[in-house]
Amino acid sequence: MKHVIAATAALVLATSATAQDGPAPSPHEIVAGAPQSEWVAIQREDLLVMTLAPDRDGNVRRVVIQLMPAPFSQGWVKNIRTLARAQWYDGTSINRVQDNYVVQWGDVDGEDAAKAKPLPEGLQVMGEDEYARSDAVKFFDVVWGQLGWRSSSEIVQSIRTQLGPRADFDDAYSATVGFHSGFPFGQSSEIRHQSDAMYIRTADAWPVHCYGMVGVGRSYSPDTGSGAELYTVIGHAPRHLDRNTALVGRVIEGIEHLSSLPRGTGELGFYESADERVTIESIRMGTEAEVAPFEYLDTESATFARYAEARANRRDPFFIVPAGGADICNIPVPVRRVAAQ
Amino acid sequence: MKHVIAATAALVLATSATAQDGPAPSPHEIVAGAPQSEWVAIQREDLLVMTLAPDRDGNVRRVVIQLMPAPFSQGWVKNIRTLARAQWYDGTSINRVQDNYVVQWGDVDGEDAAKAKPLPEGLQVMGEDEYARSDAVKFFDVVWGQLGWRSSSEIVQSIRTQLGPRADFDDAYSATVGFHSGFPFGQSSEIRHQSDAMYIRTADAWPVHCYGMVGVGRSYSPDTGSGAELYTVIGHAPRHLDRNTALVGRVIEGIEHLSSLPRGTGELGFYESADERVTIESIRMGTEAEVAPFEYLDTESATFARYAEARANRRDPFFIVPAGGADICNIPVPVRRVAAQ
Repeated sequence: MKHVIAATAALVLATSATAQDGPAPSPHEIVAGAPQSEWVAIQREDLLVMTLAPDRDGNVRRVVIQLMPAPFSQGWVKNIRTLARAQWYDGTSINRVQDNYVVQWGDVDGEDAAKAKPLPEGLQVMGEDEYARSDAVKFFDVVWGQLGWRSSSEIVQSIRTQLGPRADFDDAYSATVGFHSGFPFGQSSEIRHQSDAMYIRTADAWPVHCYGMVGVGRSYSPDTGSGAELYTVIGHAPRHLDRNTALVGRVIEGIEHLSSLPRGTGELGFYESADERVTIESIRMGTEAEVAPFEYLDTESATFARYAEARANRRDPFFIVPAGGADICNIPVPVRRVAAQ
Repeated sequence: MKHVIAATAALVLATSATAQDGPAPSPHEIVAGAPQSEWVAIQREDLLVMTLAPDRDGNVRRVVIQLMPAPFSQGWVKNIRTLARAQWYDGTSINRVQDNYVVQWGDVDGEDAAKAKPLPEGLQVMGEDEYARSDAVKFFDVVWGQLGWRSSSEIVQSIRTQLGPRADFDDAYSATVGFHSGFPFGQSSEIRHQSDAMYIRTADAWPVHCYGMVGVGRSYSPDTGSGAELYTVIGHAPRHLDRNTALVGRVIEGIEHLSSLPRGTGELGFYESADERVTIESIRMGTEAEVAPFEYLDTESATFARYAEARANRRDPFFIVPAGGADICNIPVPVRRVAAQ
């Protein structure tokens, strides 16, 4: 809910409109103005390069995935590196395309023990307790910085300092949301009441299912999947999957090769015949593939905070009514190819 | 934020798990169990049937759109009926497919006065003030019923009565969200403080940009578009467009024919060449087309409330951790073809 914040927003907007010359910059323009020092290089060992069979017109289809940073999902991420280095994914296929949900790939016979492609040695079995981390990190939240217990009045002050009183990032799925190392996260809170004050701190944190995020397919509990079967989100953020499957990265280039595939007509969008499935020619680690270097906008940078605020309050010329808020999946982290030197 | 609610959820879930026999029903199963009396027929005059040129394999591509109910966007809806009855859309094309955003269609020369296809007589010019309604209706919110001023304690009681203390529908874009006549809406609030109590009532209400919603393309302000150019959402809900463009309906069948189209490579996802554009063979009113009857699940029904709560707290066997909440665009209104008698 945001009653007060919406009213305050109008006030602040009126002020900034008179204080500025020319139209307000769009979120894209704000990002374009970020100094190079705010861009963070993505390491090649954190990239996966998936090459699909060419399309009907012979066009190359290549998808680049950035793997999840520590301390999240690292067991599955390690398995995926093992599978890619063993070239295990090569010759598997895209088996499921469900509209407004996911594209899923792997061994189409993976659930049939007699026909399944043998997995490489050394894959870890992960537990459900790894879906969220309680030991997690110093978080810089777009809403507030959370280090240990803080009073609710301190938090309100912190919000004002960081973004001005102009943005609302309320979330229906978690106590708060934020960004860490370039990825979006949800967080749970613990609350203590003491005298008249309320004190809050982050308890757990977990990556969230935004568009383009890549996760680990699994069977029913207690299986958590190995990483041999993967999916990516191609629709409205299915946040109900948060903490129910492992998120291991996100697509940073080429998602259109997945999102524009024909939808499967079987149950849950599975393809019903072999000729519908797109062959995965290879999945390689970024260290073993020809791939351009990428970088992301530091999610703790001043420009990212301005960008998030501008996503929440669109003031570029097309817009009439700024929303006054945004959900975390509507603030995609800017990623770009590093310009050639 | 939801600190208290998440903690309470765990408690309630533990109770319901022991009280029930067998696995909890999925949202889909809850909907399947709705009595016929909770399904509302969609009138043929509220349907649009769009037929695209066949795909490369000669398959028919047909998209069915349900128009927005009164009192929202009715000027644009009337224009669209006029355009469809004049067969104006026939021979126009799909001109833009932007990944994780929209598919847009209309006259590709629409902005070139010399080449634009002449519009039929009688189209209304609409104002921006029609994007939201302050005179709007008796709302039944999934969170609470709002009729005039209510105290915050009444509201809390109302939430408990309707859904139990188990679901959080916090929204970053509006004071509250809810459903009306089968469509999702955002609402703003007015607040009054009196003695120690806070009183709240709905001020404006407006339709929101969920997946599959259909809106009116427009130029810069003060133009609001006529309805000759339309778009539909094919990605994460772009809620920043709420109250900035007119929403006139939603796709209820065949969205895969739009969402799986190749992405445009021009700016904003516009196609760069004529052969990329898909021809629209026709758009007809449901009264003038062969189209199956459809119905939607009454959004004020008991089953819809159970369905919304189950979307917010997935307890069917795949799930380990229920979210404890859901955003409005993750609670799609169930729509189905009426079974043949």
